[in-house]
Amino acid sequence: VSMIVRNRDQRSADYSNIAVHYRPGHADYVYDMKYGFRDYRGGGRSSARETIARVAAGALACKILQTMGISVTAYVSSIGPVYCDPARFDQDHTAVSPLCMPDAIAEAKAAAVIEECQKAGTSVGGCVECVIRGMRPGIGEPVFGKLDACLAAALFSIGAVKAVEIGSGAACSSMYGHENNDTYTLDETGILQKESNHAGGIYGGISDGSDILLRAHFKPTPSISRPQQALRRDGTVEELVIHGRHDPVIVPRAAVVTETMAAVTILDLLMQNMTATMEGLQRFYSSGTPI
Amino acid sequence: VSMIVRNRDQRSADYSNIAVHYRPGHADYVYDMKYGFRDYRGGGRSSARETIARVAAGALACKILQTMGISVTAYVSSIGPVYCDPARFDQDHTAVSPLCMPDAIAEAKAAAVIEECQKAGTSVGGCVECVIRGMRPGIGEPVFGKLDACLAAALFSIGAVKAVEIGSGAACSSMYGHENNDTYTLDETGILQKESNHAGGIYGGISDGSDILLRAHFKPTPSISRPQQALRRDGTVEELVIHGRHDPVIVPRAAVVTETMAAVTILDLLMQNMTATMEGLQRFYSSGTPI
Amino acid sequence: VSMIVRNRDQRSADYSNIAVHYRPGHADYVYDMKYGFRDYRGGGRSSARETIARVAAGALACKILQTMGISVTAYVSSIGPVYCDPARFDQDHTAVSPLCMPDAIAEAKAAAVIEECQKAGTSVGGCVECVIRGMRPGIGEPVFGKLDACLAAALFSIGAVKAVEIGSGAACSSMYGHENNDTYTLDETGILQKESNHAGGIYGGISDGSDILLRAHFKPTPSISRPQQALRRDGTVEELVIHGRHDPVIVPRAAVVTETMAAVTILDLLMQNMTATMEGLQRFYSSGTPI
Amino acid sequence: VSMIVRNRDQRSADYSNIAVHYRPGHADYVYDMKYGFRDYRGGGRSSARETIARVAAGALACKILQTMGISVTAYVSSIGPVYCDPARFDQDHTAVSPLCMPDAIAEAKAAAVIEECQKAGTSVGGCVECVIRGMRPGIGEPVFGKLDACLAAALFSIGAVKAVEIGSGAACSSMYGHENNDTYTLDETGILQKESNHAGGIYGGISDGSDILLRAHFKPTPSISRPQQALRRDGTVEELVIHGRHDPVIVPRAAVVTETMAAVTILDLLMQNMTATMEGLQRFYSSGTPI
Repeated sequence: VSMIVRNRDQRSADYSNIAVHYRPGHADYVYDMKYGFRDYRGGGRSSARETIARVAAGALACKILQTMGISVTAYVSSIGPVYCDPARFDQDHTAVSPLCMPDAIAEAKAAAVIEECQKAGTSVGGCVECVIRGMRPGIGEPVFGKLDACLAAALFSIGAVKAVEIGSGAACSSMYGHENNDTYTLDETGILQKESNHAGGIYGGISDGSDILLRAHFKPTPSISRPQQALRRDGTVEELVIHGRHDPVIVPRAAVVTETMAAVTILDLLMQNMTATMEGLQRFYSSGTPI
Repeated sequence: VSMIVRNRDQRSADYSNIAVHYRPGHADYVYDMKYGFRDYRGGGRSSARETIARVAAGALACKILQTMGISVTAYVSSIGPVYCDPARFDQDHTAVSPLCMPDAIAEAKAAAVIEECQKAGTSVGGCVECVIRGMRPGIGEPVFGKLDACLAAALFSIGAVKAVEIGSGAACSSMYGHENNDTYTLDETGILQKESNHAGGIYGGISDGSDILLRAHFKPTPSISRPQQALRRDGTVEELVIHGRHDPVIVPRAAVVTETMAAVTILDLLMQNMTATMEGLQRFYSSGTPI
Repeated sequence: VSMIVRNRDQRSADYSNIAVHYRPGHADYVYDMKYGFRDYRGGGRSSARETIARVAAGALACKILQTMGISVTAYVSSIGPVYCDPARFDQDHTAVSPLCMPDAIAEAKAAAVIEECQKAGTSVGGCVECVIRGMRPGIGEPVFGKLDACLAAALFSIGAVKAVEIGSGAACSSMYGHENNDTYTLDETGILQKESNHAGGIYGGISDGSDILLRAHFKPTPSISRPQQALRRDGTVEELVIHGRHDPVIVPRAAVVTETMAAVTILDLLMQNMTATMEGLQRFYSSGTPI
Repeated sequence: VSMIVRNRDQRSADYSNIAVHYRPGHADYVYDMKYGFRDYRGGGRSSARETIARVAAGALACKILQTMGISVTAYVSSIGPVYCDPARFDQDHTAVSPLCMPDAIAEAKAAAVIEECQKAGTSVGGCVECVIRGMRPGIGEPVFGKLDACLAAALFSIGAVKAVEIGSGAACSSMYGHENNDTYTLDETGILQKESNHAGGIYGGISDGSDILLRAHFKPTPSISRPQQALRRDGTVEELVIHGRHDPVIVPRAAVVTETMAAVTILDLLMQNMTATMEGLQRFYSSGTPI
């Protein structure tokens, strides 16, 4: 499978005044430190443009997962000070929401915050939640290739992510054991259930078959229109005004990238898991040919 | 280098009553789902005993990093509802603190919380902070092997971690761009500084040479002495009382494991970074022999 | 699975006079060049003692392959100037042959050659052939992880191997296309056959289901008892007589190591191949649980 | 670095009559067995067209190696029954030779053999030799990443290679220890020399700094114009005449691919070797910044 996406909307000239500046909050300085060189026209490999390749691959991964009954769904759960209310969660709204939010009221408030940011020459961060449904138990490797470690690495590989949570996440550190433990139970038809899912579907780095719950926190877009002090390649510091097209918020577009990285990671681990038992190897090949 | 650590304090018999039970909050069920088999005597590979090998390796990594002027320091910043006060931060206290906390007053409060947990047959979670000082700029790979992705995967590979934050972490999602951007400046001697370090020393997955700031949130120990409903291998659910030696809090011992995983990861990436530029390759070999 | 083999027969003192010498034909010099250090007592990691771990792993791999109807069989096909005659090939003889040869007459001649070597203070090389029967078609990756590339790397990872051949091997370079091409045919029962197997069961890096044929050429043991000129660490050259227990021929013991490396490699690739098609992924998981 | 090579000379129609046939000596059958699908138009990934990407990368690798004083040179040493005479070895002739042979007399004979093959509707194999000069000692990993294992895997990853030899190669199996051992000596200026190079510059998987000598044996081109029996996808066998542009010999064009794979492999291992000693790590970073 090979795909090419041509960028027909590049405006390299917009970036000409940052050729000699290291922008605050950007990777400009560190690229020069690492490679002695950086492509300042649009951010190079640290630009979010790079995620188009991920999303293209993720579309394939999602299709394959669908045939196995697994869905991956991400949405924006907060923008700046505005949080979606779980009681108003509406998956159908997410699909039509320009901010990719499942709560119409929160979305309206967030839109107002974003408009304020534009006026004030600043930007705002946000949080993406992702749910993986239909997972099989047993996915994830036991020590260094834990399912949560793989998912966290995948989400932190997206630019601007500064925190990743699984299940109860950061809240777990102030919880008590009897609160945080998920108790197994059987429903009336004898199907295994849990009374809660603080673990987010992962124990010891391995899925238990319940929903996997992820949260990724994105920092505000670092490119803002108000003047900032910036370092120059010659070692001096001066005021910089950044031109070009920059968003006051990146998180609505980050939802699909989060979804993508989760889907690709899950599919990889499903494949790896095929060799978890020798019985699996024998069962796979017992049907005669590998086709 | 080869090291063997013999466990002279195992008490396998303590675990005999969990041979047929899947304990809440533990990886018992998922191991059986993955491998059709689990070693119930002490938790097998999902036991924190496994981290002894990491700590042994980390001790070597820290020694090597020291010779390069890099230090890795972890401490417990919160236990349950008790948070260390940055104003009382005392690194020397951490070294003598049984709870590995840098704030003597918070430590006393946390000790009381832990004692309450023991009486109540429960446990409590906590947070470990880790600071890496003396980092060189340019460490970390630009797309999938980002420094933050590698560190997050390393920390999530430790059992019981449910969230990892870098720099401003989860708080970034409710911040504005002009707050979260770290502004470059030069101090009076012309040395590059930043006015803040919300990025935690990492931009675009690459270090900028300032301190790297990490936080790992640990869930409460799942083994608690109060009776819990547990699943049995035969599919029934019954009350289980877990025997054996289990801690009301794991986080003070998790600090050194966090330190270890950070140190090993940093050292690996320093090695990888040696090939970032062709000039580096030529400079390395220009001195004649590789010895 | 964990195994420990304790060496109860080490005689480190035998090696004391080579602490400052680089022996001809050995890895002594290159280890010092690479690491600035070498363990001269028995050869360290470049000693064939290291292969005990491979053989232990290979024993497991062979058992698993057996359950899938795949056998891996290696034997010594030549020692010095003595070649086994295919017309006298007797697999049962190999099992009892001290030289691991399938031809009793060749074995007697080879034994005489070895005895001459011992008298003359020298050693002799030899060739190991390996046949993998019962292979499934489709094993091996198409570009860089070719089945032949993996097998060759596995055999060259055994010390003393200087050439690896697949099927018609080195002879292919002086053959014509109509000779070397294996023509497909159907036997009287309609089963697919090939009229020859010059490809050794591998086309384009992928198995076709016919026997895989390998040959590994082993150099003569470099430790010989006759005096040799050797380099000293101080840069001078002087005559050296090597003490210790050294064999006039290594190839009979190399057969099982060759078998091992082939078995482990094949098993790895069978596992990798489970993900060759999406249909395979779906078929694997369609039975419900991964157990 | 990114390069695109557009194939402006494809003639897919030439392949239309092989859509349902598995050609003898080709990977057609195994691709269908592995993937349930193959791209018959030109051979897909098993076509030698694929090597253009390798050669492009190898050109860069060779340029980098040149700056370190390392050269990689490959040439055709035999075609069918015609072998170059080492006594007539002329590197300058290789550069202008259409058959990439260093011996003008052998080249004339080989050209006649190739012409005969064309008339007879067949093809012929050949051997490529490769010499790597200026190597540093200490390159290659000690157990599974041996320099010879990496080079062998790289050469076997080229289609049509059926044997790889290092130094004395296959001949070593019929040699005696005192013949095959390379004796160290000092030349009149005190520089370390070896009296022979049967090891081909590699001991225990690690380079010793002398020339690395490789040989890859290529099978005759399987596409020949005379009619052959071929298997059809429907399981029947029938006579097939292969159209399209096919060479009576592939080995002159395989020389540059061999050179490429050797260069890329050596450069990779030089990079890996930078971390062989802690002293190296410290020396690398001691100069201050990595730039």
